[in-house]
Amino acid sequence: VTTPSTPAASGTSQLATTPFRRLDHVGIAVWDADLAIPYYRDVLGLPLVGDEDAPEPGTRLVYFEVGGAFLQLVQPVSEDCNIRDWLREHGEGVHHVCLAVEDLSSITRLRPDDPEAPIFQAGRDRHACFLTNTAPQGTLIEVTELHRSR
Amino acid sequence: VTTPSTPAASGTSQLATTPFRRLDHVGIAVWDADLAIPYYRDVLGLPLVGDEDAPEPGTRLVYFEVGGAFLQLVQPVSEDCNIRDWLREHGEGVHHVCLAVEDLSSITRLRPDDPEAPIFQAGRDRHACFLTNTAPQGTLIEVTELHRSR
Repeated sequence: VTTPSTPAASGTSQLATTPFRRLDHVGIAVWDADLAIPYYRDVLGLPLVGDEDAPEPGTRLVYFEVGGAFLQLVQPVSEDCNIRDWLREHGEGVHHVCLAVEDLSSITRLRPDDPEAPIFQAGRDRHACFLTNTAPQGTLIEVTELHRSR
Repeated sequence: VTTPSTPAASGTSQLATTPFRRLDHVGIAVWDADLAIPYYRDVLGLPLVGDEDAPEPGTRLVYFEVGGAFLQLVQPVSEDCNIRDWLREHGEGVHHVCLAVEDLSSITRLRPDDPEAPIFQAGRDRHACFLTNTAPQGTLIEVTELHRSR
């Protein structure tokens, strides 16, 4: 049994109302997206709506759309991509859950000012960040903006 | 690197169009929902919209709503609940991703006729099943109906 994360107790990180507008996507880490695509596209029949390289994290991101949300395959591309370490430790599977907000400034209190939680250019031309030091119960949460940043 | 699941190659399990209507919820396995609730409710500010016991799998299910979809905490209650085994092996974290269909009969071809994939009475009065023998890349996929079954 784990202990709960502490921000709620401090009171400083609580939000009066939620800034989260939707469940944007679930990120699934895989070694090779080409091996995973046939299941989602051909067996489940989900539309493949995006396949792009995200330079900053050094990943290939493949998107399947389901009712306006997405299943996202995350394949490490660059040698120093930290998804490689995650895959070695965990094996393939769900890596993160991403919630969408109008503007990342609405979650400043949830995003610690540390180098582990930078805002980066994520897939689909969105700004995003991870809630790295508050991830509860083993669940890594990404936050992305609803609208394109460019 | 894993090998892909085989149903796509056989051709018999392919769907001409997708029956999946939305990303319904992400199930997060936890030992004690009471320890996890404060983060989702008070820190993220998500509305807690359900807290129920699901007798058949022997679990407590807690739902937070985000844009019409849900984050679902899954706490084992009964002694023989298989979530206990999963938690001992994996630790707390994302356990499954659930997609919604109009009717489970639309995915008969994806649901093998074996005792590991029964239709059961899931949370929020929905019928659901798991795609147990086709789960690709370590991702367990549940399928639920959009509408209440009672």
